[in-house]
Amino acid sequence: MAYSVRRLQAKDKAAWLPLFKGYITFYKSTVADDVIETTWQRLLSDEEGFHKGFVAVDEADKPVGIAHIIFHRSTWSPTWYCYLEDLFVEPSLRAGGIGKMLIEAVYKAADERQCTRTYWSTQEFNYRARGLYDKMATKSPFLQYRR
Amino acid sequence: MAYSVRRLQAKDKAAWLPLFKGYITFYKSTVADDVIETTWQRLLSDEEGFHKGFVAVDEADKPVGIAHIIFHRSTWSPTWYCYLEDLFVEPSLRAGGIGKMLIEAVYKAADERQCTRTYWSTQEFNYRARGLYDKMATKSPFLQYRR
Amino acid sequence: MAYSVRRLQAKDKAAWLPLFKGYITFYKSTVADDVIETTWQRLLSDEEGFHKGFVAVDEADKPVGIAHIIFHRSTWSPTWYCYLEDLFVEPSLRAGGIGKMLIEAVYKAADERQCTRTYWSTQEFNYRARGLYDKMATKSPFLQYRR
Amino acid sequence: MAYSVRRLQAKDKAAWLPLFKGYITFYKSTVADDVIETTWQRLLSDEEGFHKGFVAVDEADKPVGIAHIIFHRSTWSPTWYCYLEDLFVEPSLRAGGIGKMLIEAVYKAADERQCTRTYWSTQEFNYRARGLYDKMATKSPFLQYRR
Repeated sequence: MAYSVRRLQAKDKAAWLPLFKGYITFYKSTVADDVIETTWQRLLSDEEGFHKGFVAVDEADKPVGIAHIIFHRSTWSPTWYCYLEDLFVEPSLRAGGIGKMLIEAVYKAADERQCTRTYWSTQEFNYRARGLYDKMATKSPFLQYRR
Repeated sequence: MAYSVRRLQAKDKAAWLPLFKGYITFYKSTVADDVIETTWQRLLSDEEGFHKGFVAVDEADKPVGIAHIIFHRSTWSPTWYCYLEDLFVEPSLRAGGIGKMLIEAVYKAADERQCTRTYWSTQEFNYRARGLYDKMATKSPFLQYRR
Repeated sequence: MAYSVRRLQAKDKAAWLPLFKGYITFYKSTVADDVIETTWQRLLSDEEGFHKGFVAVDEADKPVGIAHIIFHRSTWSPTWYCYLEDLFVEPSLRAGGIGKMLIEAVYKAADERQCTRTYWSTQEFNYRARGLYDKMATKSPFLQYRR
Repeated sequence: MAYSVRRLQAKDKAAWLPLFKGYITFYKSTVADDVIETTWQRLLSDEEGFHKGFVAVDEADKPVGIAHIIFHRSTWSPTWYCYLEDLFVEPSLRAGGIGKMLIEAVYKAADERQCTRTYWSTQEFNYRARGLYDKMATKSPFLQYRR
């Protein structure tokens, strides 16, 4: 089976929903249904200041992976930073290169915007994904504090 | 000497510059002068999508510390996240509560915007600051990857 | 193929050597040949104060994995601590339960000596092994400093 | 006040006890009184395989800091490793160079034994001590797992 990455579209909602929920569950977290609906509307709006969505699709154009990015300003950059907030691949299709394709699509979108940084976070224990991240990016020495 | 925190103003430029540069130097990094000038203009613009600046000032209204924050959307939030990108206090005035006052001003600004998360990053070795951060926030178990 | 764990024996030298060297290479390190020979002699000596060796063997009694432990005193324990210094499984046989069997044999040896702690170190990036360690032990919040 | 470091002696018991207990409390841990008594006896025994104790003393020869080390074999070394298990300085005397003197005495003892490694552990949050450790040693990239 061959996969490709394209922008998220309105017709993807039914397939997008379990992927986004799968991602949230992976981090043992919860997001209220109305917030998920708001996020869905914002992803489709294509407005400045909101996230852009990408999906990896199979040959039948069925989404099997998602990536949500947001461009934001930085005091250290004349252009933008690209934050990859969410990344998820259907569990049964892991280790087949789909995560890599999604990150490559994110890099391309960041390049088009001349972003001076592209970054994301992951939990320490997320070993399988980190095997991929170690190949495509650099672990920063920064810690995050949250109120 | 008593200190207070207020929004950054145009008259602060001469005092703001060495504080922002001190911050950049602390992280053994560099930012081009024209980017710093762009950042200064953006901080004053008060436009949506750009950073807001706060300064801690002494009794003569002289800036001795800075905080730069940006509000951005999150797919996990109906409102906003508040990212504290830069925080710096004049080295000779450390450990006197100025950093704490700046973070409290950031929390207040985040609350006014109903932010569901306020966060920042710091390097592992930044022990003195982390002593304060440990009291005011929680170290997240997340690692950051950067392209 | 079934595997079992037994104490290291003199006849194991030819099979033990590439396993110990494989372990050293995994950590991108080197140990001089005469030190390796000294270690081999000590492992066989069964004297107090030196390491004890375990091997995982296949049905032909061929070593395919090794574990070296040492018991040492602790100021916090009336008995002993058990330090698992080296653990290695033939790469082609990974993820088949051999590492788990070796750790279980270490735990048994530690119990026989009434050790109040059994511990080992690993590098942050050692994701595959850590997936196993997370199931069998607890990551401590301690950092190690070395002269 | 000048300080110096010498080997622990039988007459130090009354001063040693609150220092060792202070250390244990710092790590929010407990050690039974009979284990502490056993440790005391072992520290004085000067027998192979048990810890050696050092004390930093003031001009009245009163102990104000302690260091306990143990030499143990390593499969990677023809000689010994030196493990600094406990290090504590009277809280009111911190940041005055006493910790540094104790570590230097440990290094000297390790050199006399031709140790190929001297190491210790500390918790991530132990910022003040780590400021010293960062100057005198290197943080290893190793994590510790404990049963």
